[in-house]
Amino acid sequence: ADAQAGRAKATQCQACHGLDGKSKLPEAPHLAGQLEQYLAKALKDYKSGARKDEMMNMMAKPLSDADIANLAAFYSSLKP
Amino acid sequence: ADAQAGRAKATQCQACHGLDGKSKLPEAPHLAGQLEQYLAKALKDYKSGARKDEMMNMMAKPLSDADIANLAAFYSSLKP
Repeated sequence: ADAQAGRAKATQCQACHGLDGKSKLPEAPHLAGQLEQYLAKALKDYKSGARKDEMMNMMAKPLSDADIANLAAFYSSLKP
Repeated sequence: ADAQAGRAKATQCQACHGLDGKSKLPEAPHLAGQLEQYLAKALKDYKSGARKDEMMNMMAKPLSDADIANLAAFYSSLKP
């Protein structure tokens, strides 16, 4: 996975999760330093709808598998 | 919420999440320092089944609202 590409993609995520992976909203979890595998699974489940959240289902819908892997690599690489 | 009571309750969670909130298994997310509101929502959704995970649905089933609040207070209080 390519954390650099993940960082570019994360410009869409930063409003709630920040580019530092620190939550910017009470509902949004911190992502910095989270398990890469866990982040990828969350995005996969939000994309497939296996995990329901209005905002995240919408955000994850257009993501490719590569986007998901890169975003997971990026956010897990950040210092919590 | 009572983080001390949450710590006692977390003895059931430590195998995967640790009492330090650091993941002990590749599938289990880090919980230390996570948003208290997010942790409570996750447990609530695992308890109700709104969020599906075999292990977590089983673990959350017996939890009371107080248990959920205390666990969320405990894990969010830990240093990530």
